[in-house]
Amino acid sequence: MTEIIRDETGTQRTLGYVLEIGHADGGARCHLDVGEEHANRHGVLHGGIATAILDNAMGATSSLSVDPRGREPFMTITMSTQFLAPALTGKRVTARGRITGGGRSLLFVEGELVDEDDRLIATATGVFKRARRGQDGVA
Amino acid sequence: MTEIIRDETGTQRTLGYVLEIGHADGGARCHLDVGEEHANRHGVLHGGIATAILDNAMGATSSLSVDPRGREPFMTITMSTQFLAPALTGKRVTARGRITGGGRSLLFVEGELVDEDDRLIATATGVFKRARRGQDGVA
Amino acid sequence: MTEIIRDETGTQRTLGYVLEIGHADGGARCHLDVGEEHANRHGVLHGGIATAILDNAMGATSSLSVDPRGREPFMTITMSTQFLAPALTGKRVTARGRITGGGRSLLFVEGELVDEDDRLIATATGVFKRARRGQDGVA
Amino acid sequence: MTEIIRDETGTQRTLGYVLEIGHADGGARCHLDVGEEHANRHGVLHGGIATAILDNAMGATSSLSVDPRGREPFMTITMSTQFLAPALTGKRVTARGRITGGGRSLLFVEGELVDEDDRLIATATGVFKRARRGQDGVA
Repeated sequence: MTEIIRDETGTQRTLGYVLEIGHADGGARCHLDVGEEHANRHGVLHGGIATAILDNAMGATSSLSVDPRGREPFMTITMSTQFLAPALTGKRVTARGRITGGGRSLLFVEGELVDEDDRLIATATGVFKRARRGQDGVA
Repeated sequence: MTEIIRDETGTQRTLGYVLEIGHADGGARCHLDVGEEHANRHGVLHGGIATAILDNAMGATSSLSVDPRGREPFMTITMSTQFLAPALTGKRVTARGRITGGGRSLLFVEGELVDEDDRLIATATGVFKRARRGQDGVA
Repeated sequence: MTEIIRDETGTQRTLGYVLEIGHADGGARCHLDVGEEHANRHGVLHGGIATAILDNAMGATSSLSVDPRGREPFMTITMSTQFLAPALTGKRVTARGRITGGGRSLLFVEGELVDEDDRLIATATGVFKRARRGQDGVA
Repeated sequence: MTEIIRDETGTQRTLGYVLEIGHADGGARCHLDVGEEHANRHGVLHGGIATAILDNAMGATSSLSVDPRGREPFMTITMSTQFLAPALTGKRVTARGRITGGGRSLLFVEGELVDEDDRLIATATGVFKRARRGQDGVA
């Protein structure tokens, strides 16, 4: 059964996306209703915000791979995003993560962002690292 | 002489960063005072917001390379970001862009994000494409 | 019907991979029998050679998208590769490309490299640009 | 005093580049005399071979950061390359690495590839992981 997580972090409250976990495929989803407050100069979804929700979906997917509640913290080490098509305001977009490989410490994760018409907006790949308590660096 | 641009886009208003242009090196800057509203689960600057301001600084740098007012629109084609160190809330961070190559249509741009103590937080590389009027795709 | 292309370029002769086109899915394949001559310090397939055959499969896939003979030249603009697992000498590895988006000038392409046991060795994303005659730069 | 390392690995013998260590800046160099055997369909340096020598220079730079002889093994986790300009056959190209951040386990490294006229051919960023004995995966 899926569960919706809202307003967990400052960024989530600022951007207004929701996180959805509990899918059988293990992939977390982030949903965002694209409004003017997410637009860039071209009047479409800002690439940075697209990246933010991809990052969130991919990080939460990393966490779900070791913790069914998705609470185990992972840090983004590197992320590469391809911007395939503009996402229009007024549409809902959804980012989804998928683990492609890795081991105890590092995970390789793919993400894709689609709009409500299932148009592919962006794809991403990232490396995520399991955070250890007391660690303040990323590497 | 440098000039500050505020509140130009929805994303800029939502995230609260300012854009600074007019530096002799041609590189645009984006400044953000990191607050709780920009934090991730670890209580530090969210990687997606770090990416958003890097993207903005790099896109504005692209625009400045052909237009001193920085208004000529460029679209982000692809962007790769490395997260080197966490940026703490309460600190100001600054993203700066630098053109490394390209031609009439595509530009290769580097970015770096530092905090007010000049600690390197993230680096990025991206490809930006000059937008043509009437074009609705990115490629 | 699939077709094998051998020894077309200096790099292909040097590295010894073969290119296979004509698959119904439109994706070109590159096959390499990994030998000591492709090994790195760890005695496994060198990441650079993994990247070379991924690049070739992705570039040829770009070409096939506009020319069934796969002769139309495309240039690699940017490429990001994730190294998931080592590829052992004595194994055959296969890289395959897949178009994810793009338009008349730029294509977004994904690649994956698997070994003969279908183990995922590396994944890649890239942006490819259709080459125009007489152009000597990449952008 | 700098030292030249030749023919250390199968890949090095196949591609014919040399590795140079001992520079005061800590950055390893790889030099390659670009010939027809390194050319792609366009008759210029193959992007995969450009990536291979960038990868080597960056990996050796990682190793030099903990071992002055540059023997400590590091594995490439992810690498992103931007292809700015073609490298012509008959020219010598040089790749150089530079550490930008990291810690005990992971290093963030930048690379650049220039030709003998100091023209920037390609830039790269990568994440490298210190290899532990007995480990057979990459993460």
